[in-house]
Amino acid sequence: MTPERLIYLPLGGAGEIGMNAYVYGYGAPGAERYILVDIGVTFPDMDTTPGVDLIFPDIAWLAERADRLDAIFITHAHEDHVGALGHLWDRLRAPVYARAFTANIAARKLTEHGHSTEILKVANAWPATQTVGPFTVGFLPISHSIPESSALVIDSPAGRVIHTGDFKIDESPVVGEAFDRALWSEVARDGVHALVCDSTNVFSHHAGRSESTVGPEIERLVAAQPGMVVATTFASNIARVKTLAEAATRAGRSVCLLGRAMRRMVEAALETGILSDFPGTVTPEDARDIPRENLMLIVTGSQGERRAASAQLARGKYLGLKMQEGDTFLFSSKTIPGNEREVARIMNAFSEMGVDVVDDTGGLYHVSGHANRPDLEAMHQITQPQLVIPMHGEHRHLREHVKLAQAADRKGLLAPNGTCWSLSGNQPEIVEYVDTGRTYLDGSVQIGALDGIVRDRIRMALNGHVIVTLIMDEDDTPLGEPWVELMGLPETGRSGTALAEVLEADLTQFLGRADDKTLLDDAKLEDGLKRIARTGANDEIGRKPEVTVVVSRLS
Amino acid sequence: MTPERLIYLPLGGAGEIGMNAYVYGYGAPGAERYILVDIGVTFPDMDTTPGVDLIFPDIAWLAERADRLDAIFITHAHEDHVGALGHLWDRLRAPVYARAFTANIAARKLTEHGHSTEILKVANAWPATQTVGPFTVGFLPISHSIPESSALVIDSPAGRVIHTGDFKIDESPVVGEAFDRALWSEVARDGVHALVCDSTNVFSHHAGRSESTVGPEIERLVAAQPGMVVATTFASNIARVKTLAEAATRAGRSVCLLGRAMRRMVEAALETGILSDFPGTVTPEDARDIPRENLMLIVTGSQGERRAASAQLARGKYLGLKMQEGDTFLFSSKTIPGNEREVARIMNAFSEMGVDVVDDTGGLYHVSGHANRPDLEAMHQITQPQLVIPMHGEHRHLREHVKLAQAADRKGLLAPNGTCWSLSGNQPEIVEYVDTGRTYLDGSVQIGALDGIVRDRIRMALNGHVIVTLIMDEDDTPLGEPWVELMGLPETGRSGTALAEVLEADLTQFLGRADDKTLLDDAKLEDGLKRIARTGANDEIGRKPEVTVVVSRLS
Repeated sequence: MTPERLIYLPLGGAGEIGMNAYVYGYGAPGAERYILVDIGVTFPDMDTTPGVDLIFPDIAWLAERADRLDAIFITHAHEDHVGALGHLWDRLRAPVYARAFTANIAARKLTEHGHSTEILKVANAWPATQTVGPFTVGFLPISHSIPESSALVIDSPAGRVIHTGDFKIDESPVVGEAFDRALWSEVARDGVHALVCDSTNVFSHHAGRSESTVGPEIERLVAAQPGMVVATTFASNIARVKTLAEAATRAGRSVCLLGRAMRRMVEAALETGILSDFPGTVTPEDARDIPRENLMLIVTGSQGERRAASAQLARGKYLGLKMQEGDTFLFSSKTIPGNEREVARIMNAFSEMGVDVVDDTGGLYHVSGHANRPDLEAMHQITQPQLVIPMHGEHRHLREHVKLAQAADRKGLLAPNGTCWSLSGNQPEIVEYVDTGRTYLDGSVQIGALDGIVRDRIRMALNGHVIVTLIMDEDDTPLGEPWVELMGLPETGRSGTALAEVLEADLTQFLGRADDKTLLDDAKLEDGLKRIARTGANDEIGRKPEVTVVVSRLS
Repeated sequence: MTPERLIYLPLGGAGEIGMNAYVYGYGAPGAERYILVDIGVTFPDMDTTPGVDLIFPDIAWLAERADRLDAIFITHAHEDHVGALGHLWDRLRAPVYARAFTANIAARKLTEHGHSTEILKVANAWPATQTVGPFTVGFLPISHSIPESSALVIDSPAGRVIHTGDFKIDESPVVGEAFDRALWSEVARDGVHALVCDSTNVFSHHAGRSESTVGPEIERLVAAQPGMVVATTFASNIARVKTLAEAATRAGRSVCLLGRAMRRMVEAALETGILSDFPGTVTPEDARDIPRENLMLIVTGSQGERRAASAQLARGKYLGLKMQEGDTFLFSSKTIPGNEREVARIMNAFSEMGVDVVDDTGGLYHVSGHANRPDLEAMHQITQPQLVIPMHGEHRHLREHVKLAQAADRKGLLAPNGTCWSLSGNQPEIVEYVDTGRTYLDGSVQIGALDGIVRDRIRMALNGHVIVTLIMDEDDTPLGEPWVELMGLPETGRSGTALAEVLEADLTQFLGRADDKTLLDDAKLEDGLKRIARTGANDEIGRKPEVTVVVSRLS
């Protein structure tokens, strides 16, 4: 038996929907050569990551082995697949392979971080392949909600692995390549060792719908509106943006694109030839002079993002454009779980303006980019893999996807982030548990999720912050009284006296009682002051705040 | 024409789903007598109200007129209708009317705050009425997701108003009174001046489903599970709790109730005779000895609340009980928008344990307590009001409900929080705009939403907190260097030197340059130090933190 083995290790994406990063390796134990598939971000939220700008997978394990990393492959240009490339490439320094549209987006990410785009290799679609180390890898077109999405056909001496990337089975996707069942069958014909497969919609039991089904509905809607129509969708969903723009044109409306991402994505699609027949657009300046019933804006901000065009319009004027009674706002999108409050906020703002808001509640104006359960079954059926490895899902999605495979008598492997598997031989085996986790982009600094920095921010948000300053004179006795400042706390509590004063009195009393052992020992002194401040606050306002004590010794 | 008029003023609930509080008044301008319908809470979230415990409507306007408030009526015992009673009663001091089950819950809220329950009047259902000031008010039974929900029939010289409270049209609600169409028609027969109507589900286009439809589905599910079954629902949904318990009993399972609210609600239902035939339950201690396949737990925490029984089980053992592979967890509930992340978190925790999680995705195991659009139309039809006033909704719900009424040629009135209407005469008129808003329960203190306290907490969470301390000696020159402490910020940034040290150097330099005008003026000095600290941090870590400066002068 050969000591070489095929390795699969998800560093991100198999435990969340986001920050995809999957390592494949081949070689003798300890001497494997690696490739990385995708290097995405996930987005912070106020509950768990206040103030954080972006979240990356922790790639420490791979960075330590960067000398054995032969290439990075990007399946498609969504942020959760390519978003961390610019931020993390420096630690990996391997060539990056992507198809033209994806490479166009990836290039901007690299240059924004001062990296040369020479390391970026534009790949053609299957049957073209690239050989990197022990792997031969091809980009097999697959339908999704962004152009040129591709599965990867990863061949090694251990056999063929198909890594689906994000996908749906769409045979008329409006823009880009239709799902080609015959081609897929052909690729799978000689046997698929493992199918590493998108799990996002495993809980959606109905059959998936084609992108082409939303066009007629949107057209009907846009044509029927009396005022201006504003529509939002993910900018990267070029097919949808095109559908929206064409609906406008057919209804005799000029199209104006609002929001940086919207303009950039359409630009990238035009540059790479993905879009050739996009309707002409007008600038915001020109749009102001067009009668409302002849105008449609296509804007960023389908998730209610504070700075996107949708939210700006909800707050009032944006680039001289303003919504009013009789206008219509269309969410041609789905609200991602967790964003409900932000979306509702802008819906209510529009409602107050008298704007009619239309969303996908009725299932007419949006379709998902991911394969629903029946389409996952179809994918298993087409590829007939020896092993199904669910990815791109929270734990519950992966587990359900394994059960789905098993229900059809296939082998399924539950492989969450950090489990490093040997896929050689008949039975996958864990060969290592790798420390994985999250790295935060915090302002301009990368910090570890477990550094305690964000935890302290959460604590201040929940409990408020008391600052106690005390000066100790040359004899190590308090010079005057301790001083208390409050941040994020009520000024007065139960007693009706200012909270700061109450705490200062408590602290002064404590210092009066304190013996030399306490007064001479900074740590003891700080602990004591902290404890008193917390207890005092709890008596007054029913809350134990965070306390920072600063003792200055004049000695 | 009589100068007396009928007043309607929502203080809460007409602009959010939560903190319901509706004022009705009758009398000459400035001399109206008032009643208040409901006095509920809404729940905080990390995004906008970190650290806040509960949110109340701002009742300042009514508190100033408390001498003219004749009564408080509570339609039902949900927290968003009765939750603020204990906290705010002191400022209103009017008798409280409620039916028996609601009064049972209300009594606990009053006694928890040291108020006598003597002010609580247990009311019988329609045709019984109470006369308070110019009003005669009756509790008209209506179906909802808690026992003894009632609409209020509010008669005054200006005619009959029906205030629906929360409702659905359910003719077989499992527990409590069925919706009695004949009775409602009779009440409406002589004319309804205004219908003040629940708007929660106005965007749900399909017909509502009866509570009785979930029983058979739950029974089938519970009977088919091989291991322990744990089910969660809102504790106040006594009908659902009963359905779950009966499904357990029929499947040969003992029932154990977990979570304080669960036990308290069942207790209240038993005490008030709402429940007479609830299956016997076992204690958690006894439950440990029962084989898993013969056990069902009914637990609190359908929204993933951190301290509820569901979340405790997701974290491990709770009261000696633990879930394991082969067990099933059933969400017989809907996830309220905004709670998706918390619910997903516990679902994933269960998934990691090998527990099967079943939720309402398929629409089998939960029905809403609110009237869907067709049922709202039915309500309009049954009551034939001269005016429909939507309540219990965000702005978009109210607006849509007005449009729904208008589509059937009825008059609809969009009356958001703070608009005080005269409903007398043919055309409602705004007579006053009342300042409304939110009051936060923060620890044990009530604070205003606009006090800036929570804003400071949010800022600390987003930006971190820098504390600068500086001692100025008797000559008003700095004694030593300023000292910097960080909270919630990275320890090092761009330069690789500790951030605190970089800032201390920047601040020292600033002090060296500062003239006497700055050094002698506390405000100027603090402003300068703040500015330098923020700029310095921005250079190092790409973030401008909150800064607190403490200057101690020895002079």
